[in-house]
Amino acid sequence: MTDDLVGRALAGEQLAVARLISMVENAGPRLREISAALTPHTGRAHVVGLTGAPGVGKSTSTSALVGELRARGRRVGVLAVDPSSPFSGGALLGDRVRMGDHASDDGVFIRSMATRGHLGGLSWATPQALRVLDAAGCDVILVETVGVGQSEVEIVGLADTTVVLLAPGMGDGVQAAKAGILEIGDVFVVNKADRDGARRTVRELRNMLALRDAGPGAWEPPVLSTVAARAEGIDALADALDEHRVSATASGEWERRRRERVRREIEAIGMEQVRARMEQVRGGDALDELTGRVLAGELDPWAAADELLDRTV
Amino acid sequence: MTDDLVGRALAGEQLAVARLISMVENAGPRLREISAALTPHTGRAHVVGLTGAPGVGKSTSTSALVGELRARGRRVGVLAVDPSSPFSGGALLGDRVRMGDHASDDGVFIRSMATRGHLGGLSWATPQALRVLDAAGCDVILVETVGVGQSEVEIVGLADTTVVLLAPGMGDGVQAAKAGILEIGDVFVVNKADRDGARRTVRELRNMLALRDAGPGAWEPPVLSTVAARAEGIDALADALDEHRVSATASGEWERRRRERVRREIEAIGMEQVRARMEQVRGGDALDELTGRVLAGELDPWAAADELLDRTV
Repeated sequence: MTDDLVGRALAGEQLAVARLISMVENAGPRLREISAALTPHTGRAHVVGLTGAPGVGKSTSTSALVGELRARGRRVGVLAVDPSSPFSGGALLGDRVRMGDHASDDGVFIRSMATRGHLGGLSWATPQALRVLDAAGCDVILVETVGVGQSEVEIVGLADTTVVLLAPGMGDGVQAAKAGILEIGDVFVVNKADRDGARRTVRELRNMLALRDAGPGAWEPPVLSTVAARAEGIDALADALDEHRVSATASGEWERRRRERVRREIEAIGMEQVRARMEQVRGGDALDELTGRVLAGELDPWAAADELLDRTV
Repeated sequence: MTDDLVGRALAGEQLAVARLISMVENAGPRLREISAALTPHTGRAHVVGLTGAPGVGKSTSTSALVGELRARGRRVGVLAVDPSSPFSGGALLGDRVRMGDHASDDGVFIRSMATRGHLGGLSWATPQALRVLDAAGCDVILVETVGVGQSEVEIVGLADTTVVLLAPGMGDGVQAAKAGILEIGDVFVVNKADRDGARRTVRELRNMLALRDAGPGAWEPPVLSTVAARAEGIDALADALDEHRVSATASGEWERRRRERVRREIEAIGMEQVRARMEQVRGGDALDELTGRVLAGELDPWAAADELLDRTV
């Protein structure tokens, strides 16, 4: 049955793709088998991360970009890691509706993923879903993640190109620097560019980016202005993604990032395996007992981890 | 020398505390020894996480709260995981200056930590620093983290009490729900409450929180209004922290969270150990070789992780 599903997903059948993503996302028993069957068909998709604080218009931008890429004849995958609550895993209606524009297009694959609360989160589950979309023939996969902070760092590890979205008034230079976004963007987009302060935000970003010492020949991240709700500026954004791909391929950065991504994925899988094994030592009793001893001050966590690993491996 | 440092830190000497935090943060060779020496002296501090999007006034609020807690005679630790860029690790001047109000107070321990880009990030390094501050006699430790997304989920794992900060206009209900913050806050603070829209933000938050089904007898998160820059409302915030401690202790939630925190820490240390070992297999050549084979489509990442684990353990 898995063979059949994989075959249908490779042929680009939407339902098969959706089922496979569910299977890998939930770490089902066939995950390894599926992963092995898909891997030889992967490596072609351009993975684009879109990130930014809540309210900058990530979902609207993603939807507009899907439209533009479809007009260019590309097959597009969307992994919306946002919108969802990290605990409830529930998607919000608004975004589903907006994405609904593309729901009947068989060249678009849309998937909401719940971010996981446990260690590993994005780093672990998202690559599995990316692999399915890649093998299913997506030319571009847009990964929309909420936020600032750790999840942005993680998206850098996953994406070939990282797009950072800001909106006027939320994204002045110092705040951008605080959130650590200057270092991670390959393309910056000031969305809602019809609002007051948009030009100032663009100017401040450009000034701060000019201070980055990227070295000779390095990609210089453009700062674009868009009004995603009216699809304004989205063509330039699609162009910038292509330009970044060409530049990064030429400089070797593309290959370097992909290597790093696979490296991290192998490590993350290995660590997750170990975590699962640690939790299963004596049906979880070993970890409970060690936890109790640390809480009682009898044992420090390092010694506890040593004991657990000794019993695990 | 470590014994002496630990002794001085336990006596609350600032310089010794700072040195110990550096040693544990950098995972220095004496980390285990230090951790073992400190553990019996820990468990007393109230760990308070403060989180919110950039621009809501986390640093100002933290500083004001330090002042209030000091006025109440508490010894206070501050771990500023924000502000810093995840890549540069650099703290920004502005916050240093504001925190400078407390720099000469020997009942306050302030520490900026760089968030780490690698898997584990906060979950791994922060507990080590918390242990030092706890053992050094801090009654309350404020952990200031940037953001929305994964890092917030992580702070929930670390803190006894999680304070979510919002500002008018950034924190309307739907955005709050999107960012997943409703589930994680024990106390909500609408800062900059002198600005337009503050009352509306408070009202929306209360309405959304009222929909949470927390069960009978559960803590009901208050929504407070502050103007941290003028220290307005900070006394009520300090009261709310105490009230949450009393309530959570009575309900058993306090113990449950601490148990979960230690459990996660043991796991995180164990996983980090395994990661380090995986990277060292054949001086890192094994991981490089496996990465290359996955990139070439010869091997899937699961099989690669299996091979690596087999060689590691």
